[in-house]
Amino acid sequence: MSSNPLSVIMHPRSIVVAGASNNMMKMGAMHAMNLLYGGFRGDVLFLHPSEKNLLGRRAYASAAELPYVPDLALLVTPTRVTPGLMDELGARGVRHAIVVTAGFREMGPAGAQLEAELLAAAQRHGIRFVGPNCIGALNTHIGFNCTMIPYTDKPGRVGLISQSGTYVAQTIPYLREVGVRYSQAISVGNAANIDLVDCLEHLADDPETHAIAMYIEGVRDGRRFLAAARRIAPKKPLVALYVGGSAAGARSSLSHTGSLGRPDTLMDGIFAQAGIVRATTVDEMFGWANALANMPAPQGRRVAVLTHSGGPATSMADAIERIGLEMPEFSPPLQAKIRPFVAPTASAKNPVDLTFDLGNEGFTKRIPEVLFASDEVDAVLIHGMFDTGFALEVHKLVGGPAGVPEEDFVKPFMYDLEPLLQMPGNSGKPLVASNFLRVDHAAETFRDRGVPLFRTPEAAVRGLHALVQYGRLRERLSGAVEEHAEAPQGPRLESGVMNEFAAKRLLAAHGVPTANERLVETLDDALAAAAAIGFPVALKGLPAGVAHKTEAGLVHLNLRNKSGLQAAWKKIEKAAPGCPRLVAEMLAGSRELVVGMTRFPGFGPCVMLGVGGLFTETIRDTAFRAAPVGLADALSMLESLRLKKLYGPVRGLPPVDAELLARIIQAVGKLALAHPEIAEIDINPLIVVDGRPVAADALIVVE
Amino acid sequence: MSSNPLSVIMHPRSIVVAGASNNMMKMGAMHAMNLLYGGFRGDVLFLHPSEKNLLGRRAYASAAELPYVPDLALLVTPTRVTPGLMDELGARGVRHAIVVTAGFREMGPAGAQLEAELLAAAQRHGIRFVGPNCIGALNTHIGFNCTMIPYTDKPGRVGLISQSGTYVAQTIPYLREVGVRYSQAISVGNAANIDLVDCLEHLADDPETHAIAMYIEGVRDGRRFLAAARRIAPKKPLVALYVGGSAAGARSSLSHTGSLGRPDTLMDGIFAQAGIVRATTVDEMFGWANALANMPAPQGRRVAVLTHSGGPATSMADAIERIGLEMPEFSPPLQAKIRPFVAPTASAKNPVDLTFDLGNEGFTKRIPEVLFASDEVDAVLIHGMFDTGFALEVHKLVGGPAGVPEEDFVKPFMYDLEPLLQMPGNSGKPLVASNFLRVDHAAETFRDRGVPLFRTPEAAVRGLHALVQYGRLRERLSGAVEEHAEAPQGPRLESGVMNEFAAKRLLAAHGVPTANERLVETLDDALAAAAAIGFPVALKGLPAGVAHKTEAGLVHLNLRNKSGLQAAWKKIEKAAPGCPRLVAEMLAGSRELVVGMTRFPGFGPCVMLGVGGLFTETIRDTAFRAAPVGLADALSMLESLRLKKLYGPVRGLPPVDAELLARIIQAVGKLALAHPEIAEIDINPLIVVDGRPVAADALIVVE
Repeated sequence: MSSNPLSVIMHPRSIVVAGASNNMMKMGAMHAMNLLYGGFRGDVLFLHPSEKNLLGRRAYASAAELPYVPDLALLVTPTRVTPGLMDELGARGVRHAIVVTAGFREMGPAGAQLEAELLAAAQRHGIRFVGPNCIGALNTHIGFNCTMIPYTDKPGRVGLISQSGTYVAQTIPYLREVGVRYSQAISVGNAANIDLVDCLEHLADDPETHAIAMYIEGVRDGRRFLAAARRIAPKKPLVALYVGGSAAGARSSLSHTGSLGRPDTLMDGIFAQAGIVRATTVDEMFGWANALANMPAPQGRRVAVLTHSGGPATSMADAIERIGLEMPEFSPPLQAKIRPFVAPTASAKNPVDLTFDLGNEGFTKRIPEVLFASDEVDAVLIHGMFDTGFALEVHKLVGGPAGVPEEDFVKPFMYDLEPLLQMPGNSGKPLVASNFLRVDHAAETFRDRGVPLFRTPEAAVRGLHALVQYGRLRERLSGAVEEHAEAPQGPRLESGVMNEFAAKRLLAAHGVPTANERLVETLDDALAAAAAIGFPVALKGLPAGVAHKTEAGLVHLNLRNKSGLQAAWKKIEKAAPGCPRLVAEMLAGSRELVVGMTRFPGFGPCVMLGVGGLFTETIRDTAFRAAPVGLADALSMLESLRLKKLYGPVRGLPPVDAELLARIIQAVGKLALAHPEIAEIDINPLIVVDGRPVAADALIVVE
Repeated sequence: MSSNPLSVIMHPRSIVVAGASNNMMKMGAMHAMNLLYGGFRGDVLFLHPSEKNLLGRRAYASAAELPYVPDLALLVTPTRVTPGLMDELGARGVRHAIVVTAGFREMGPAGAQLEAELLAAAQRHGIRFVGPNCIGALNTHIGFNCTMIPYTDKPGRVGLISQSGTYVAQTIPYLREVGVRYSQAISVGNAANIDLVDCLEHLADDPETHAIAMYIEGVRDGRRFLAAARRIAPKKPLVALYVGGSAAGARSSLSHTGSLGRPDTLMDGIFAQAGIVRATTVDEMFGWANALANMPAPQGRRVAVLTHSGGPATSMADAIERIGLEMPEFSPPLQAKIRPFVAPTASAKNPVDLTFDLGNEGFTKRIPEVLFASDEVDAVLIHGMFDTGFALEVHKLVGGPAGVPEEDFVKPFMYDLEPLLQMPGNSGKPLVASNFLRVDHAAETFRDRGVPLFRTPEAAVRGLHALVQYGRLRERLSGAVEEHAEAPQGPRLESGVMNEFAAKRLLAAHGVPTANERLVETLDDALAAAAAIGFPVALKGLPAGVAHKTEAGLVHLNLRNKSGLQAAWKKIEKAAPGCPRLVAEMLAGSRELVVGMTRFPGFGPCVMLGVGGLFTETIRDTAFRAAPVGLADALSMLESLRLKKLYGPVRGLPPVDAELLARIIQAVGKLALAHPEIAEIDINPLIVVDGRPVAADALIVVE
């Protein structure tokens, strides 16, 4: 058995519930009733200081009286008694718990003190626990549900880890309706002991969980999270909804699970690096996880669209193009294979639009057979079919007045979907569907059999895109060579702002191309250096400890001749007498980047690539990755910039040497790992000279 | 009665149906059954060449035999007989029709010919008709539904105009479920006679229609569309889903309604100018139209969030910040007013999160009273409440085993929502809600009573944002002074590419600031001009008919002295001997814009503002408006650029003079209207010099 405590917590054979009452409108009673009547086959014991009977069963007055040591304790007790109870349970031998009780860290300092006591009590006995301030957990494959909402659907394939209890329990009726089924779901609450990463590692090993959804308001141990996700993602798809990035979101989250918010852009980068598909809404999180749990990732971007309806076909085509997928027109041979199954007036080109054509086996069998078998198609999208949902509507008109019972009327409309359901598995290509009808044999069959079914054509396209994204992330991760964070440490650098020349020499030593430049002491040296480098040159003064030289009048660019250099020399002499000076070539390039490094709590050194130049701060087009950055990840950073096209072959300029840029990004990451005392690095601007990025200025701040 | 033919078509007292059959699985029968059994109180006649009885009623063999002239004819006939039938109906006196029949223009040249015949037949008799190739129409307030799907919900407030029949009819069950109710819905089909704009004008005058949704794949008569929408939007909200902009979408749309696609960016601008809120998906189109039909637009952006659930509160807070709304922390006095109605551990700050607190009248009455009355709140968002939907779930646990009937168990959870439902109307502030539960008294009440109810917290925020957008669009339109397209025509310009100097003089005469520059004939003139203007200068050769001078070696910038000017002179002499030359000041500015004009079929001259500079084509950050451009619209163009912050006060630079920029945009529009022979205008770059945009180069192409 795994050493992960969740392997016991999520598979308990016996549970003791503390905090239940006979008032069925209290949370404790609801949680307990789910255990009693939710299909759980293990034993349930009750603990209560005064009640002798709870919900028709004997209640024990203390842990000591329990007839045996249960696998798991569920605590829904008043806050102040919880630490003491944990101690009592530990003394009886209990080693695993879920603490639903709230009122801890999320309530401020007094609550945080209580939470510390709770944790200390648990640690005294080696108890591992989920919570506090959580809603409980479910393992649908063993009927284990200790939340307060019943789970009445079949066991499923989607694992959920959530920092909000609402998204575990109150969404259950919603999930039943949209056809998303949990394998397991865990509300992590304040994560005083068992955290997000423990849950992730547990679900990674759960054979019933085929994809993992995460609702995240904040990540505390960023490096551990990243490492775990990178290990898991190539084998099991991960989807995350992250909402802790905005100021308002962070404030609200503080009042909720006490997590600290992380900047949104950092998490974008971390998710990309970890191989996590990022959802933007709750329904995307669930819908995409369901698609990923049930369908293979496509090998390419070419989508075939099959429908009866022109409007949805156009909506899908539009959404496909916007999101960066492709809906290629089929080759004449492929069209010829489809043609026999569509009306003469219908389109076989892609979208295949059968128009109003009832009861056509072509739609559900013959055409899909052709599409799934074709090497022109990577994925199939279906919108709508005239199955029983349509028939039910029509029956209201023609069946009712004609006196035909609904059931008889509807029956001929029941498509045999079995062949279609086999095609994704047989071909390795995904099938994704949308349908405006919910009460419908086809819709119900899709939901039941794991065909991702979205409500609108656009949502189906986005769901398919999540599969494409996962395929790409997996490919990048699989190709990536692991680089170790434990780089050899360099000799400690002196504290303070390193001067530009020294900073660039350090970067150059790590392989960053820098401008041709010389440190000079006299004007004659400067003139000689300029002659050797060739005009125009830049002259910069480098007094110790100045981070922003331009503002201090210490930077003079584009000096075209001796007299210009002499004039600049004098100005620097006036601004900072006797300071070291740098004569540097003027780099000629119209495109600029910025590469930098900063440290985030929990994530350590993170490297940034951004659009550079005068307006870097205004444009705010950046990508982050945690160091060390693998080559594939570094390459992906340029791809993730909104204005990435700037750095392609534009207006006669060569594309940026992406591999060299990636090496620079990697070098900055390695430098930060080798020198934990470096707080920040800025290479700004990194000027693109004939496609080659060269550091024109650099700043390194040492703590 | 209005002269709009739809006032008869959508309020018929009698209808003749041609093309129905006794085969109830044929479209004709379905359409007819909806008229017979859908609640329509008018008379329905049948026309059929051979059948004597249809659906239990007498069928007339020819139009001549009809006992009286019906208000409307509904044609679901075979394509080839339709033009002849139109003639026959016209001869009998019929003047209004809906042609469902397909197989016309959308099928290519032969179909287009048939469509021309159909139109000609109608015009001979003065018949106005909807279609062909449409799905029919509904006026729910008189039980009139000639589509093939029954409408069983109550009459509503949302008018729909759709270029896809699917979104009129097949969505009816979906709309019933999400609580969106039509007032009227019209499928325009190929719009051979009655078009989008006729429908728009008709619904604008319909008192039961409180907001109009439009599904658009292409706009043919752009100027008429724009003028109509601008007139209507200040009084009645308009929402559009436009999907004709992508190449794939346009192709698919060609095979569907035969409309031509328009570039997506143009339509963004046209919608902004017209006051139309643009939806991006089908569910947004319907959901937002429903919100706009039932709720007032808020006066500001400050949102109060009320919930029982931390996760949804955080999701809402995050979505609010991302979309540009605000969720301000409440003032201590406002918090004090809320405090009595929440538990000590709950938040009264905003979001107001009551946590797990059942049966609290505070949630539905007391707290909303405080929020709607507060001058700190412009709009209220509610997620979830513990009403009967929650109780139904809990009953599965605690009610069932305890033997309490569902109905009895659920009853105490029915909130009295009447006071809440009155608050938006009384305060003029909107209420928008989300709820994961669909089968729920509160959810059903909201749907029934016009409180926009979305499925997820994020969708609710987007729905509220649509109300905010409408408020802003209405404000801009209301403040706009109408400018007339009928500008006085100037003398016709000579065909060809106008030289830069002449182009700038023409622009300057319309008020566009231009660089200080002189046309010169000799090198001595050039040197004198440079001396007068002051070095550095630019020297450009202007041979006739050259649109791209830089590529031809005719542009020499940053000439710093006489010798530089002389060298440039020689190069131009070599490249284009004897051509006119221009000496111009070098404009010093690090920010560039581009303003231009091009003509779109149907929309006439459209003015563009874009991010300028070397990478204009790469960045593609542009805004379009049709000329003439009002001042408010011109000002809004800068606001709509993604990189608009570049032109604010950044890095010590002054903000761009937005009003001057707007005047330049207006001038370009007026110039295009005064000279219909101008095909294109480019002012590129328009350099921002100390905040003032100045034309550094210009191109005018005359047809």
